Amino acid sequence: MKALDGNLKKIHKLLNPESVAVVGASNSKGKVGNIIFEGLRRCKARLYPVNPHEDVIAGYKTFPQIADLPGTIDVAVITVRAEQAVEIAEQCGRNNIDNIIIVAGGFAETGERGKALEARLQGIPDRYGSRILGPNSLGVFVPENNFDTIFVEHGDRSLAEGGGIAFISQSGSVGVEALGLASNTGFPMRAFVGLGNKIDLNELDFLKFFGADDKTDCLALYIENVEQGREFLEDARKVSRRKPVIALKAGRTPTGASAVSSHTGKLAGSDRVVSGAFRQYGIQRAFDDEELCDAAKTLSYLPPAQGNRVAVITGAGGFGVMCADYIETDSPRARLQMAELSDKTISRIQEKAPPFASCHNPVDLTATVTNEMFVHTLEALIEDAGVDIIVCITFFAPHSITDNLIDQMAAAVNDCKKPVMVFTEYGPFTDTYLKEFYKKGMIGFPSLTRAVKAVRFLVERGRILSTLEEEA
Amino acid sequence: MKALDGNLKKIHKLLNPESVAVVGASNSKGKVGNIIFEGLRRCKARLYPVNPHEDVIAGYKTFPQIADLPGTIDVAVITVRAEQAVEIAEQCGRNNIDNIIIVAGGFAETGERGKALEARLQGIPDRYGSRILGPNSLGVFVPENNFDTIFVEHGDRSLAEGGGIAFISQSGSVGVEALGLASNTGFPMRAFVGLGNKIDLNELDFLKFFGADDKTDCLALYIENVEQGREFLEDARKVSRRKPVIALKAGRTPTGASAVSSHTGKLAGSDRVVSGAFRQYGIQRAFDDEELCDAAKTLSYLPPAQGNRVAVITGAGGFGVMCADYIETDSPRARLQMAELSDKTISRIQEKAPPFASCHNPVDLTATVTNEMFVHTLEALIEDAGVDIIVCITFFAPHSITDNLIDQMAAAVNDCKKPVMVFTEYGPFTDTYLKEFYKKGMIGFPSLTRAVKAVRFLVERGRILSTLEEEA
Repeated sequence: MKALDGNLKKIHKLLNPESVAVVGASNSKGKVGNIIFEGLRRCKARLYPVNPHEDVIAGYKTFPQIADLPGTIDVAVITVRAEQAVEIAEQCGRNNIDNIIIVAGGFAETGERGKALEARLQGIPDRYGSRILGPNSLGVFVPENNFDTIFVEHGDRSLAEGGGIAFISQSGSVGVEALGLASNTGFPMRAFVGLGNKIDLNELDFLKFFGADDKTDCLALYIENVEQGREFLEDARKVSRRKPVIALKAGRTPTGASAVSSHTGKLAGSDRVVSGAFRQYGIQRAFDDEELCDAAKTLSYLPPAQGNRVAVITGAGGFGVMCADYIETDSPRARLQMAELSDKTISRIQEKAPPFASCHNPVDLTATVTNEMFVHTLEALIEDAGVDIIVCITFFAPHSITDNLIDQMAAAVNDCKKPVMVFTEYGPFTDTYLKEFYKKGMIGFPSLTRAVKAVRFLVERGRILSTLEEEA
Repeated sequence: MKALDGNLKKIHKLLNPESVAVVGASNSKGKVGNIIFEGLRRCKARLYPVNPHEDVIAGYKTFPQIADLPGTIDVAVITVRAEQAVEIAEQCGRNNIDNIIIVAGGFAETGERGKALEARLQGIPDRYGSRILGPNSLGVFVPENNFDTIFVEHGDRSLAEGGGIAFISQSGSVGVEALGLASNTGFPMRAFVGLGNKIDLNELDFLKFFGADDKTDCLALYIENVEQGREFLEDARKVSRRKPVIALKAGRTPTGASAVSSHTGKLAGSDRVVSGAFRQYGIQRAFDDEELCDAAKTLSYLPPAQGNRVAVITGAGGFGVMCADYIETDSPRARLQMAELSDKTISRIQEKAPPFASCHNPVDLTATVTNEMFVHTLEALIEDAGVDIIVCITFFAPHSITDNLIDQMAAAVNDCKKPVMVFTEYGPFTDTYLKEFYKKGMIGFPSLTRAVKAVRFLVERGRILSTLEEEA
């Protein structure tokens, strides 16, 4: 890790604390302070429950108040309600706690009274140098060290292996649902951060941090408003030179934008301006949580596309047709075209394909497809210089296809500089197969639209990289 | 069932046979003739295995050849390879078997030799009056009577309860994958028919049959070329007056269309002409298997929309914003708008909503949402005359939402003339929740795009119905 400035050092501590105080920790099952404390017991940090009404929580010595805590505390997680949380945040500042996470809602998002409460928090960072995440924040989750303050069920266990995506969400619910969605078929998560009302730490801080973080290879953001627009854009451009930045900015339409105001008490900003700025500064835009997760997973795992020529392999003719249709359908994100295969590639495919196969793009190996035919074709397409991206329509229903195909495909794409995308469907077994692909380093989706969208993200990323290089 | 003409009577027998011969039935596990025969043992028809090399198959007396079969046979399923299948089809005709299903591929889709074989099949229907399904057909599956000739795993068990959708697919693989996809979260299937190379029975026959069938409430077709275009369109318009007809016509783009030719040996036809004709004749168009299944499920279960004004309920502000964005985004299928709620509706929602909720559309009940608030809001929206469709963003992560909400919502929408659509996500539990909604008579999807697309299909259906009424 490079030398970090003071701010980034504090964020580093926020995500990798050695000591954590949990204010409002509780022995009562179901209470937020209980769920969070229980969740934190899996991480390696020293834990300090704070609760004036308990002596021991889950076997841990419990402190009546912040002032009683021994030594340095890297992070205080405040799980109590809004009014009390403001008092306690002040005490945390006074006691030189570097980072304060405020989980409670009931601040500016709830009207005048909440706004007044939130105003009382605003001075704390300046007065004491403490950084505040929230209020109304889902907190953080770092798979690498099991530091997880999220109190809502989010099916995260399968994320525990970790990965390269920094996922930053202004909305708690979008964060939770995206975590759940992402974990179904595997997701390479570096860290999750719930911004909440962002009275202090905001998307710019985390853009800077994860932009400089060697373990992060992709940033995914859900934002409803941008706090420091100009600086955010300038920084995003810098980060984008090294790693993809994808943002979901909700509130695109008139009603959507006005719903953002109700939801956050902030203006959404003109959507056309946002769109133009994102394009100009190398930010890739997603339109819902599924797209954001799919794009992040794809861009984290696969190399950017060097061009827009797509080749398709299938054993199911109809799907080859539909896939070609989607590829040739215009999209504002990136124009794709069906690759024209070289004569050499076609002859090579014909060597193993059945005589009635169609060996042009989309390559249809027919229902008599075998593992060997499929992988042989994949290898031929990887070596064709006229192909930039390959979509494998990989079904496991044909009789001569076995589960072993996944290993064989993974071996073929190993070290390959071209992105290879998988689309698979197999009724109730679909997610199991997708996860198996993921474990072997491949990215697959359970629908054609999602697979082709992911291809567009890769082509868009390739284009952004070459534009940024030209500028530099 | 109304009186059927001779052709429709034969199709009725094809789907509801009392006696079935399986040519090529086998005791050898894994052989197509074994899989099909085993599958058929669940139906109530009398089964006659035909195989010159066996005396008994799975305990059933086995006949050496077609000519030896006793009495009338309603359906012969020919599971042997192409060359032999042609001989046997001829024998079936000679022995007055009404319906012949030819499973084998290796016909016109494989080149000149296959074309010649297929030509030999073509005379059989005229010579003997037998109807042929296929060749290269996946066969049929009728949940109601367990008549299932599909030899590929398709996760169909959950479809066994049956329903109103007639699903007709020219492509075997699209059929299988759609069946699998559909079964994950429940699918109301009346019958599945695999058309294959359609040398005789084609989409028009089944359009007529299911159009007249009282148990069918929706037709879903996957077609790559249309055999009797004019008559098909005229009939589709007639059927469309009574039930939705959705078609996925692949081969929209130049490469897609040329892939259709390789795949089927037929021309795809100009896509603009197809699109225009579909619109004019009341056929709703889907663009992939997921859309086709989603649209069919939605249109089978929910009433058409009377207008395009959509109201949204959420406890997750961010998703309300994204949903409004999607609703207000233009689409060629159907323009939607966010409904303007009446003052009465707003006051009614406010009665139970938290003070900081947003009670305009999208209604954001915030993370403090309870079952009671949610259902109270749903009821208010159902009664607002300015709302045509309701989208419920129903998440189960909030602490005051319990699984019981599904029952409460189902009670509220019971007998409701307005379509109510559900979007839910809950990590690994998503499909379980969707299936639960389905069992209670509600339709839900695991992504915003799919839910809003389904809404557009309902609005399009409403518009088609009023156009057809005006014409009549």
